[in-house]
Amino acid sequence: MEKQLTELKTLLAEVVDLQRSASVLAWEQQTYMPPGGGAARAEQLATLEGLAHRLFVTDEIGALLAELHPAADGWDYDSDDASLVRFISRKYGRERHIPSELVAEIARTTALAQEAWVRARQAADYPMFKPHLQKVLALRRQQAECLAPYEHIYDPLLDEYEPEMKTAEVRAMFAAIKDELIELVHDISARADAVSDEMLHGDFDIELQRAFGLQVAQKFGYDLERGRQDEAPHPFCTSFSSDDVRITTRFNGSFLPSALFGTLHEAGHALYEQGVAPDLARSGLDTGISLGVHESQSRLWENLVGRSRPFWQHFFPQLQAAFPGALGAVDVEAFYRAINRSKPSLIRVEADEVTYDLHIIIRFELELDLLTGALQLDELPAAWNDKYERYLGVRPENDAEGVLQDIHWSTGAIGYFATYSIGNLISVQLLNSAREALPNLDADIAAGEFGALLGWLRENIHCHGSKFTPRELVQRVTGGEMDSRPYMRYLREKYSDIYAL
Amino acid sequence: MEKQLTELKTLLAEVVDLQRSASVLAWEQQTYMPPGGGAARAEQLATLEGLAHRLFVTDEIGALLAELHPAADGWDYDSDDASLVRFISRKYGRERHIPSELVAEIARTTALAQEAWVRARQAADYPMFKPHLQKVLALRRQQAECLAPYEHIYDPLLDEYEPEMKTAEVRAMFAAIKDELIELVHDISARADAVSDEMLHGDFDIELQRAFGLQVAQKFGYDLERGRQDEAPHPFCTSFSSDDVRITTRFNGSFLPSALFGTLHEAGHALYEQGVAPDLARSGLDTGISLGVHESQSRLWENLVGRSRPFWQHFFPQLQAAFPGALGAVDVEAFYRAINRSKPSLIRVEADEVTYDLHIIIRFELELDLLTGALQLDELPAAWNDKYERYLGVRPENDAEGVLQDIHWSTGAIGYFATYSIGNLISVQLLNSAREALPNLDADIAAGEFGALLGWLRENIHCHGSKFTPRELVQRVTGGEMDSRPYMRYLREKYSDIYAL
Repeated sequence: MEKQLTELKTLLAEVVDLQRSASVLAWEQQTYMPPGGGAARAEQLATLEGLAHRLFVTDEIGALLAELHPAADGWDYDSDDASLVRFISRKYGRERHIPSELVAEIARTTALAQEAWVRARQAADYPMFKPHLQKVLALRRQQAECLAPYEHIYDPLLDEYEPEMKTAEVRAMFAAIKDELIELVHDISARADAVSDEMLHGDFDIELQRAFGLQVAQKFGYDLERGRQDEAPHPFCTSFSSDDVRITTRFNGSFLPSALFGTLHEAGHALYEQGVAPDLARSGLDTGISLGVHESQSRLWENLVGRSRPFWQHFFPQLQAAFPGALGAVDVEAFYRAINRSKPSLIRVEADEVTYDLHIIIRFELELDLLTGALQLDELPAAWNDKYERYLGVRPENDAEGVLQDIHWSTGAIGYFATYSIGNLISVQLLNSAREALPNLDADIAAGEFGALLGWLRENIHCHGSKFTPRELVQRVTGGEMDSRPYMRYLREKYSDIYAL
Repeated sequence: MEKQLTELKTLLAEVVDLQRSASVLAWEQQTYMPPGGGAARAEQLATLEGLAHRLFVTDEIGALLAELHPAADGWDYDSDDASLVRFISRKYGRERHIPSELVAEIARTTALAQEAWVRARQAADYPMFKPHLQKVLALRRQQAECLAPYEHIYDPLLDEYEPEMKTAEVRAMFAAIKDELIELVHDISARADAVSDEMLHGDFDIELQRAFGLQVAQKFGYDLERGRQDEAPHPFCTSFSSDDVRITTRFNGSFLPSALFGTLHEAGHALYEQGVAPDLARSGLDTGISLGVHESQSRLWENLVGRSRPFWQHFFPQLQAAFPGALGAVDVEAFYRAINRSKPSLIRVEADEVTYDLHIIIRFELELDLLTGALQLDELPAAWNDKYERYLGVRPENDAEGVLQDIHWSTGAIGYFATYSIGNLISVQLLNSAREALPNLDADIAAGEFGALLGWLRENIHCHGSKFTPRELVQRVTGGEMDSRPYMRYLREKYSDIYAL
């Protein structure tokens, strides 16, 4: 099977190169592209994505997989080659049902929709964006239908981001945490005065913010010889290879946490991608397995590390030195409480840990209704605002702080938001396992030392790339299933302490 | 033939998208890519360029052209469709002889060679770069051999940049100007004290340089809604579509002309690309026809406009306002003379108009000898330095200011330099024609008004993209052939005036 394997890898390398090239173009669209470039960029992305798909779903690759798949059953399950054949066979089985023209059309439409979203968000004008969203939604629905039969039309879309996860499982997960979260929000709101974040609002020089955030990201282990940070309207991380992993950030000169925790979050994603084993390069396994697992990494570094007491024991003096006016007279405990202040708010990416998943639940519910047709696009902004009022007790005053705040739908990412909550849940399970293996973890963090933690994540998660399914990965690391209880326990304990509940 | 034409255009659009995507990746490599990204980027570029080639030289496109080419003889010669069939048939006839694997290998090798060149130039270490240059040279020679028979092995390489131009013609062109240039250099050196450029050396804030250069570029007509400027180790212009044309610049904080004229030069290239007719988008005709014609545009704006007296009558007060310390007490005539000071020097991109072509002749002669094997790579730095001493009377002290100064060979651009001199010659012919059509040209320039000149260039050159060969274009505009006499007359007159020869 050596020959077939080599042939398969050669063909896949070309597909991966095309996909990575598309990622460069998409990154560039968000960071530097001038406004006029949008139309041509959309065509270029359509060609790259369409061609990558066309060169993947060939009969030739199908025939190689048909030979390799039975053979691979006899190989070491954990080996790169067996994993490759498993992973690619599953992907091929899925992608083969989707016409390449549809893939190209989605790439074209979403590239244009992203440009429209930027303008519409600036103008807080949902009707400006709606026709684009309409096209995107119709195309994504069409794509889901290619993958029928399914229990729920959301299933095949979710599967793209979170392999093997079902809508019913997400529903169960949210059912398990929703009431408890709302209760916790309620308990905290009764003690709202216990925490102030006044010192986080002020005038924070953007260059100093950038330097501090990047310094911490590097301390985590983000290698700037193999990555860089740029500004974009929506923060994200993207990988052009494990040796070239980019993060973007947006800065807010008057609110310190936005860029700071945004940077730590994206650095967490970047650590995952930089940690993929070099042997997997250009194989198709050379990226994180799912967005849920990805988010477990970003949230682990952003929240479990970056919003912890030991972390700020080490870093607060440096932050004070950068911003002596705003923080010079603040003590570290007050700062720790401030950055963990929980208060229902409008913007997901700036939400605290307690309210965060409610933002996700809102989006998940709206997506289900949009896909089934229970909700029309005309009704979307009102439905969005109503849910915010119902779950969080706040109501957006305009669409920029409401339905237009996230880039995702413009990029075609319908079926994606749920993975953020999956990531939250997994992050706590993983850190609990790490803590068992690394008894000095808190002391390390308090000393600004992250090598042992990163090493553990590299070995147990990052290096595997896409070799194992999320379920397999969680099983290997925790010995069990994905479970929301450790996460809820973490939240309850942390916030009981902060708010003396 | 409507059906065949539509099919051809659809196939070509995909090829163009791949090439433009490769341009985005190449631009990004020069501007933002972190050091670690080089290896993967080389593979991605190899895949994009190789695939673009493979999808171009198909039997399918060959069959379409075989049907369309005879039919197109009956169409209006100047029409977009007739021009497309002409241009693409010629290109197909050439590219069909070259294996796509070789194209991919050249892309891979040159992407890595560029990274090596950046490091080698920084370290002024030619031996560090030599193994890369060796590979590049071997591959380019191999590519030329695919296109045998030829009169000279340089012919097929030159043809890639300057369609239909022959080595013998370039030799004749240089023979016609070389002695006269050396004589002019000699005459000027006898009067060297007549001009000082002392005020151009000093401390020039880079942000102010950037703002001034971009302001002038915009005055020329460079549209920043459809373009942008970034920094790169070697200034260049690249087009991702006529609505997205990028320029790069490198800044020198202690010598004002470098970035200033570099910006005007690249803006000249950008105006050409931004002016290509929108109807030609994604056809393969949607870029400048040749590097010689391209250089005629950059040199026209940089030198014929940007180093002219009327131009600085308008702009000098603004430049003085930006740099009052260095220029406040300087009069415009002294400044005009300073920026036109002619003095043999080491760096091509900073050379004055008189010595410039001698830099090119040196490179052209060295390339011929490298290609024929008359010169070995071990001998190259010494040969370079000897020629500088012989033609210009200066000798590089290290390879960074010698053989490593230009990025070109690392990108595979062997056969390219001659087009710079071709551009110089044509630029004067074109401006003379423009002057006949625009009797108020000098007054316009002195008023900072460039609309009429740009309009004339748009109509006569830019909008055509690659519809006409360089020869046809010069014929259409000037009624004659490419001719070095107007260029030499221009130089002689300008410099006789400045140096009172």
